[in-house]
Order: sequence, then C-alpha cells, then structure tokens
Amino acid sequence: MRQSQLFSKTRKEAPSDEVSKNAQLLIRGGFINKEMAGVYDYLPLGLRVLNKIVAVIRQEMNAVGGQELSLSSLQSKDIWKKSDRWDDDKVDIWFKTKFQNGAETGLGFTHEEPLTNLMKDHISSFRDLPVAVYQFQTKFRNEIRAKSGIMRGREFLMKDLYTFCKDKNEQDSYYEKLKKAYVKIFDKLGIGAQTFVTFASGGLFSKYSNEFQTVTDAGEDIIYINKAKKFAVNKEVLNEEVLKDLGLKREELVEMKAVEVGNIFNLGTRFSDALALTYKDEKGESKPVWMGSYGIGPGRVMGAIVELKADEKGIVWPKEVAPFFVHLIEINPKKNPTVKNEAEKLYQEFLSAGIEVLWDDREATTGEKFADSDLIGIPVRMIISEKTIAENIVEVKKRASVESEKISRDKVLIFCQKTNL
Amino acid sequence: MRQSQLFSKTRKEAPSDEVSKNAQLLIRGGFINKEMAGVYDYLPLGLRVLNKIVAVIRQEMNAVGGQELSLSSLQSKDIWKKSDRWDDDKVDIWFKTKFQNGAETGLGFTHEEPLTNLMKDHISSFRDLPVAVYQFQTKFRNEIRAKSGIMRGREFLMKDLYTFCKDKNEQDSYYEKLKKAYVKIFDKLGIGAQTFVTFASGGLFSKYSNEFQTVTDAGEDIIYINKAKKFAVNKEVLNEEVLKDLGLKREELVEMKAVEVGNIFNLGTRFSDALALTYKDEKGESKPVWMGSYGIGPGRVMGAIVELKADEKGIVWPKEVAPFFVHLIEINPKKNPTVKNEAEKLYQEFLSAGIEVLWDDREATTGEKFADSDLIGIPVRMIISEKTIAENIVEVKKRASVESEKISRDKVLIFCQKTNL
Repeated sequence: MRQSQLFSKTRKEAPSDEVSKNAQLLIRGGFINKEMAGVYDYLPLGLRVLNKIVAVIRQEMNAVGGQELSLSSLQSKDIWKKSDRWDDDKVDIWFKTKFQNGAETGLGFTHEEPLTNLMKDHISSFRDLPVAVYQFQTKFRNEIRAKSGIMRGREFLMKDLYTFCKDKNEQDSYYEKLKKAYVKIFDKLGIGAQTFVTFASGGLFSKYSNEFQTVTDAGEDIIYINKAKKFAVNKEVLNEEVLKDLGLKREELVEMKAVEVGNIFNLGTRFSDALALTYKDEKGESKPVWMGSYGIGPGRVMGAIVELKADEKGIVWPKEVAPFFVHLIEINPKKNPTVKNEAEKLYQEFLSAGIEVLWDDREATTGEKFADSDLIGIPVRMIISEKTIAENIVEVKKRASVESEKISRDKVLIFCQKTNL
Repeated sequence: MRQSQLFSKTRKEAPSDEVSKNAQLLIRGGFINKEMAGVYDYLPLGLRVLNKIVAVIRQEMNAVGGQELSLSSLQSKDIWKKSDRWDDDKVDIWFKTKFQNGAETGLGFTHEEPLTNLMKDHISSFRDLPVAVYQFQTKFRNEIRAKSGIMRGREFLMKDLYTFCKDKNEQDSYYEKLKKAYVKIFDKLGIGAQTFVTFASGGLFSKYSNEFQTVTDAGEDIIYINKAKKFAVNKEVLNEEVLKDLGLKREELVEMKAVEVGNIFNLGTRFSDALALTYKDEKGESKPVWMGSYGIGPGRVMGAIVELKADEKGIVWPKEVAPFFVHLIEINPKKNPTVKNEAEKLYQEFLSAGIEVLWDDREATTGEKFADSDLIGIPVRMIISEKTIAENIVEVKKRASVESEKISRDKVLIFCQKTNL
C-alpha cells in the first residue's frame, strides 16, 4: 500500500487519559482510536494486525475440527435465568438493555448458555458427538476498571470455542487437544517463549482451569513460574495443596506479572444440566453432554505483543502479525526523480511477489519517515536513496536490530522470502 | 466437507413463531438459529453464505479505494448529542445501556457521528481528501416490528462506507462511483435483474437518496418501476414534482413490493458541521468536509436471495453465494461398498481442484438425502450409485432445473469449471 493513500496519521502524543503503553503506541501509530475508556476502534493498520491474529487462531481451530459459527450479542434473559447467570449479583459485568416492549435483554459477555440451548436442536445421539464449534465474536463486559488499553476492553473481539462430548474421558481428551493447539497458536504469534500454561481457578465450573499467561509488566495477574517445566501457577490458587497436587516446590517458582491471553475450561455438565442438553447413548439411555470452553481475545493478544516487544521508539511487530512485512522508504525523491522511479519499481516487484509492503511515498522529511517507521514497527525497513541506487543496493534494517545491512538490488526478493525474524 | 461432520441438522418445521419465508427455510436448512424475534445466529452453512456476500462487497469497496476499519458498537453519548441524534424522540431505535458509573452509552445503529469525530485526527488538509472508509460491523436497531426474518434484524451485520470530500462536486462524483459499484455488487450476487436503483427520501440529510430495491413479495416497501429505464421511485416520495424532476410518467410505472438491499446518501456537511470536521484548502482557508454514506446489509441480501429464488422444496442459491458448489450424494453405499469408494474418490478430486463440495456421507435414506439437498439448495447435485458406476458416469442435477443429465466420469471436473448457473 502507498502510505500517501493511508488515511490514518501518526501523532506525537497519545490522549492524556490513556495510561497503558499498548494503547498509547497503537493510537500514536494510527492502529486504533479510543472511543471511550475500554472501547477502541480498529483503523486499517490495526485491523490488518487483528485479522492476522484471527487467521492464525482460525487455522488451529479448524485443525482440531472446530466448525465456525457466529452467535448474537443480544441475549435472551430466559436462557440465562436457567443457568442462574442473569442476576447482577451473580454476574456483575452485564450490559443490559430493553426492547421496545419493555422486555430486558443482555449483551453477551460469553456464550455458553445460548450455544448449549441451540445445540439441543442438533445433538440427540452419541453419533452426533464429539463436536466443537467456535466463533470470532464481540463480547461486552461492563468492567469497573479499564486501564489496560486493548488488553482489557469493555467491548472486544473474542475467539470462543466450545466442545460437546459424550463423557468425561472424551471431554478430557478434547481439552488436551485444545491445550496443544493453544501452545501452537502462541508460538506462531511470536509470544510462545513468554507464554506459560498456568494452573488457575476453575471458577464456578470445575476445580481448576488452565490459563495461558504472557509475562509482561503490564499484566494484571501475578503468576509463579517454573521455567524448567514451562508451567506456572496463578497466585489466586497457590497453596500447599495445589503445590503438592502439581508436584511443584515453592522455591522453584519465580513470581512474575503476566497477562492472561487465553483460558480453557472443563465445564462438565454445568450448562447441559441447566439447559437440559442430553443425548441418547448406544443403549438408548439419556445422558448429559460434557462440555468445555476455550477463549482467546485477539485484541488482548495484540496488546500483549505490543507491551512485550515495543522499545522506546515504538512498536516492534513479529513477522506473523505485522500489518506489512516491508516498509519501503524513499529518501529525497524531489532532489533526484530516479529515487521515486526506483522505489516504484521495487514496490511493484513486491506486489507481484505477494510480499506485503507499505511504501512511504509521502512528502515528508527523512527524519519524519524514520520516526514514523520506528513507531509503526514493520519488521523490515528498506531504503532507496541516490546513494543506494549508485551502489546498486538496497539498505535494509530490521526493526528489532540496531545495525543495517546492504543487500544487492537483485537479491532483495530472495532476502524477503528467506528472512526469518 | 463431509456432511456427517457438519453439526447442524435439517428439520421439517420452522419454529411456530417464525412467519418469514427466508428465516423459515434458513432455520429448517440449518443455516441460522433464531435467538429471539429479530435476532439470529449464523450456523456454519449460513456463515459460509454470509461470508461470500461479504467477500463480493469487500472487493468492490476496495476497488473504489475504500479502506477497511472497524468501529465500536458502544457509543459515546456526548458525540451523538452534538449531532442531535441522541434523544429517543429524535431516534427511536436506540438500544441504550449504562456503564458501572451510571453514565449512559448507546449501541450504534449507524456510525456517522463516531467516524466524523475520529476523522478530525486524520483529516486536516485538502491533500487528505477525498478518502473513503468502510467496515463490516454489527448494528443494533430496536425495531418495534421484526417479522421479516434476517431481512430486518434488531442486530445485524452491515457494510457501511463513508466518503469524505472537499466539496459538493467531489462528493457527487464519489456518489456516482459508489452507485456503479452497488449495481455491480447486486449483479455479482445474482439479484441484479430484480434490483432497481430507486429514488427515495433523503431523510434528515438531503433532498433525496438512492435505494437499491429488490422486487419480492416479502418486501416491506412499495416502489414504482420503470422497467425500460431500470429505475424506480419509492412510494414515499412519489408525487407530481418528483415525476417531473425525474422525467417520468406515472402511466409508465408499475407498482411492486420490494426490499431495500442498499441505500446511499449524500450527507452534505450535516455531520462535519455538527462535529467540526474541517480541512484547510489550497489557500489555507478552513472549509467543512462533504460526506456521503453507503450501506448494504449482507444478511438482508441473504434473506432477499432466499425469498427471490426459493421454490416449494427449499432454497436455491446462486453459485456466487452458495455455501458449496457441489452436493455429492452417494446412493445405498451399504448395499455396494464400491459406491462409498467412488464417492470418496470424487470428493478428493473436488478438494484437490479447489471445488467446494458437501459430501452427503451420512447414513440416511436416499429420500432423506434428496429432500435435504433440495432444502439446502446447493447449485449442483451429483449422484454416485451402483448404476452410475456401471455406466461410468455421474448423474448431475442443477438445483434450479427439473431435468438431470449424465456426465461422463472423466468430464466431471471440467463440467464444474465451465458451469455457469
């Protein structure tokens, strides 16, 4: 894309009421806009990143047999009454509103209830199980605090997958499958090394759950990490019994701040009992369906990546989620028109080769271009100038490196295809 | 996809409270689920159709230079106060709710206000104009009546594009560009012949707007069509003055029921004035930005297609939006295992060739398979049986035709690639 055509502009200062690093940088870079506290819009650059995260997650959800659907945000009070999660003293993050006839409705903060209810039309026999369905859907949560930028929104995109199984065994084995898929997802997203499977509370549903916690000072959680075992325990559940159960010793654990980027639950028959989702087994006997739920917030992951990788100059995107792979910068094209022509030529070569490129063809100073490039954080910067043309090279600087290097002009595409960042 | 793996089941009856043909058929076919009146979920088959409609629209929005973003549903009262569209006596379809601190917020029924406000950070000079941005985003409208299935939802996906221009001329010319793009979209979606550019009220914004009205008995609007000119007038604005302005004669017009599948507005400076969105022109003078807005509801289009094309047996999808292109049906595989093997072989050939296929590999009677196939409405049905194997053919029946034909087994892929439905 030509940067002159991109409507979003960078800015020097984030809004004064924005306290989180991720939102500050993302707003300054033109990735997002702050609508209200905890409510953000995704501008073209931000949407590109978000969609890449979504694509990585979708691929792994399909790989475990997930079928994609999309449930409504407006929720029926009747259904949530059945599971006893409608009342505000049971769930304190509801946004509720009313239809014209005065009937109450709520904005989904999760979707166990409507999905369990829906599945009654589609699950009747053991032959229908197991089944896994998922969605990328907007959740609304009326959080009291919303100071972590896009890591804790009042409105945010969530991938939620739900499994429906015949019994505990089948559910446990699907749970392990999803756990592996989650590890793969965070690896692919470039935050695998900092992300720990974490033993956590099961909430209302079960004895425990597994969180995926990414270590960052911006996190709201405290976890205790065993690095050797690549495993952690959430502070909320850390006690002698848990340590014993897990075979961990307190002195092996390191306390760290972290952000929960995913959470997986064994739900048991909590919701199938409440909403009467049953199936007939091989003998024709009616049995409750066993369920699990598995969440990842793509926006929260995006925020965590910014927090983890940014430096004092701006964002540093991993290749997998970067809005573009190459930031092509032309130096002083007005002084020498050849520069513009060469940049255009290289730009077209990138497009033909399917390499995602943002070409800074704006009328701006070199200093402005470099500062914006650092802020936006595209993995590879390529510079075309009078000098590089004379030398028949392109100057290349990786965003995560300090040094730049010279690449022979005819090796540029090969460099892009081979570069692993 | 193997139909045995698809979790959704067809059903003989729609819910008794569902009065619209589109929702009845889509529920029976397992495309959607009714959450509440005017609130529907998209199941895998339905989401596939919706995504295809989205893809067609996105392509044309990109072609006119649109940049995709995604705005929030939760809306700031302050911004809507400025344009005087917050109060319920001005806009009577708001869903409103409250943050924990008691402050009111509304669920976006459209996005002129927040987008105009956002653009103040990004538009400052004539060099920044024109710009067009769009999104596929969920709208919430607290409709009193919601009896038209997915053609009028209380929560629904909408593509809304907005143009920002220097002056009336530039805006008028962008408007014409979008009008052409819309004509192209409805052609591509297979309802071009039944869809008319319609002269309609401009609402609060301007003297008039253009609707895109698709003729169907299920429509809630009355339009007067001039078939020769491929143009119509909405009943709401039909009077002598309008007829004169448009150069139409009343006796040339035919009254029809229709559904509005798209609507495009010249907004003038209605919102830029209210929210102070200005730019500096070539002389450094401050000028208001001229705007336009352009909507299409992909779900409404999907409902209109069902209404238009369905027959007494079920849905008839145009090729462009069908969930799959081929419905592969095996007959009596238990009687002769060769049938299953041949079906599997053909299925794999389709997958390799990138032809989207739903293979009915379920244990069901031939009658059930045919009835479901008619209901689901995939364009091409291909039958593998003992008989077709013996003849070295595949029996092919297009959903929209009565007759079936025999295709030589080795010509099946070529048939698929060449078939224009």
